Amino acid sequence: MSGSVVALAGGVGGARLCQGLSQCLPAHQLTVVVNTGDDFEHWGLQICPDLDTVMYTLASLNDTAQGWGVRGDTRHLMQALARLGGEEWFALGDQDVATHLMRTTLLKTHSLSAVTAQLCQRLGIQVTVVPMSDQPVRTQVETDQGRLAFQDYFVRRACQPVFKSLVFSGIEVARPSPGFLAALSDPELSAVVVCPSNPLLSIEPILALPSVRAQLRALSVPVVAVSPFIGGQAVKGPAAKMFKELGLPATASGLVEYYQGLLDGVVIDKADGPPSGVKVCSTDILMRDAGDQARLARELLTFVETL
Amino acid sequence: MSGSVVALAGGVGGARLCQGLSQCLPAHQLTVVVNTGDDFEHWGLQICPDLDTVMYTLASLNDTAQGWGVRGDTRHLMQALARLGGEEWFALGDQDVATHLMRTTLLKTHSLSAVTAQLCQRLGIQVTVVPMSDQPVRTQVETDQGRLAFQDYFVRRACQPVFKSLVFSGIEVARPSPGFLAALSDPELSAVVVCPSNPLLSIEPILALPSVRAQLRALSVPVVAVSPFIGGQAVKGPAAKMFKELGLPATASGLVEYYQGLLDGVVIDKADGPPSGVKVCSTDILMRDAGDQARLARELLTFVETL
Repeated sequence: MSGSVVALAGGVGGARLCQGLSQCLPAHQLTVVVNTGDDFEHWGLQICPDLDTVMYTLASLNDTAQGWGVRGDTRHLMQALARLGGEEWFALGDQDVATHLMRTTLLKTHSLSAVTAQLCQRLGIQVTVVPMSDQPVRTQVETDQGRLAFQDYFVRRACQPVFKSLVFSGIEVARPSPGFLAALSDPELSAVVVCPSNPLLSIEPILALPSVRAQLRALSVPVVAVSPFIGGQAVKGPAAKMFKELGLPATASGLVEYYQGLLDGVVIDKADGPPSGVKVCSTDILMRDAGDQARLARELLTFVETL
Repeated sequence: MSGSVVALAGGVGGARLCQGLSQCLPAHQLTVVVNTGDDFEHWGLQICPDLDTVMYTLASLNDTAQGWGVRGDTRHLMQALARLGGEEWFALGDQDVATHLMRTTLLKTHSLSAVTAQLCQRLGIQVTVVPMSDQPVRTQVETDQGRLAFQDYFVRRACQPVFKSLVFSGIEVARPSPGFLAALSDPELSAVVVCPSNPLLSIEPILALPSVRAQLRALSVPVVAVSPFIGGQAVKGPAAKMFKELGLPATASGLVEYYQGLLDGVVIDKADGPPSGVKVCSTDILMRDAGDQARLARELLTFVETL
């Protein structure tokens, strides 16, 4: 592929596909736009879970077993916090807290885009990683137990409450980050990839930013999603449960319906039936390891070139 | 001893003597007043080095080999910070950072006295530990290289610059903490112990608080110091170097001269000559272990009863 690619990503699934894309594209041809709706403050630390997962994965520091955090990280700080009476519902790895401390310190004088660029540079990441916005957007989840802050719903309550709708606090005054806008208006842009991240929790905050949906629809290049579903289940996380709670099938067809005409193509698992109304690439979409990631990214880019 | 004791303490030496005192006195009879002139903000964390050393020591969590920090602590966070380009001049142990995070969070809504009481309660500390003040006092050191923030002089430059004088920023508007004042006005008070901490860096900020010197002079009970010097050297830290730079001998005589009539008695090492003008207890003042700490505390309390 000769042009550049913009990938919209959340946490684990998005990070894995982006690592695959980074192996198939020259670094200057890939911009990863990362959801910040999950961001929150905890113990005074500015925590950006999806940015961390994407950065750690692209730097090959990620814990592939648990899916997030730094490989081999310890929890000595957290155990000591517990000894002092601290709540333990959100895991804080010792190396992970270094990222939070550095980000929190730098954010006092720099934008999240600038902080992210500095962290990526220090971690040796070559591709461009940008937050979806430099203004705080905080996802809240309307449930049968009331409106919950994202991490309360996602981590503390393990997505058990029945999902009804999302509120993105702050989104009216947020703007897409400069790097996001620059990537979308790049004359070399050849595709937008919607990663196999949770469509509601990870991708929707990006799409809900002012002007983003309209800009994506106005693009002359294809917008292609990789399905997060295999056999009616999400590969990871609560996407299938939430789709069902919305009355949508947790399938590629449900995905295409959810994105409401945004997609030109979709990459689905060979076990699943093809949705109608978009071009389809059917393959093995489960990313078990770096080999799968690179293969899926290659097949995705080959598919995009046919659109 | 039937009455209560107030101990004025800095870091390691003070903490050790206080641990000894805590083994000789019922918990309600001992109040440890801790220097906060060394406190500073680092990585957005509110760090109180002397309070930490006193708490860890009284909780038997202290690293007896290096003298500060938590025994067996790791530095995974700090190594990760270095990977991200962070300065490493101030050591941050993983368990230690838990204390800093908890304190920083609690300080947003509580006084340092209240935070210290909560941390001590969680660590199972029975004696009363109070900061010298709830208002920030920041020691600055005038040197031949200009005026330096305390940790810059003490840690980053390892006390190498020639010491000239001290500035306690904020002390004019600081007040002794409620617990400090309450302990001094306790009708059961039977002695004030000036711990073998650095007289300039650890004890002077406490004495320099408004009204403290006058209150100590007005007390009818004895004020007794344990010398931080043995054979013209400080047991730990730069006290001897600083005394010499002030033109004072690094001896018990220099100590008595430095405190300008404040002391009624002094406990000195048997290797050293007795100062004039105060009562003297001569013994082995080196605290190698918990046994030494308890023995020295016992000898100190016996000496106090003779005054």
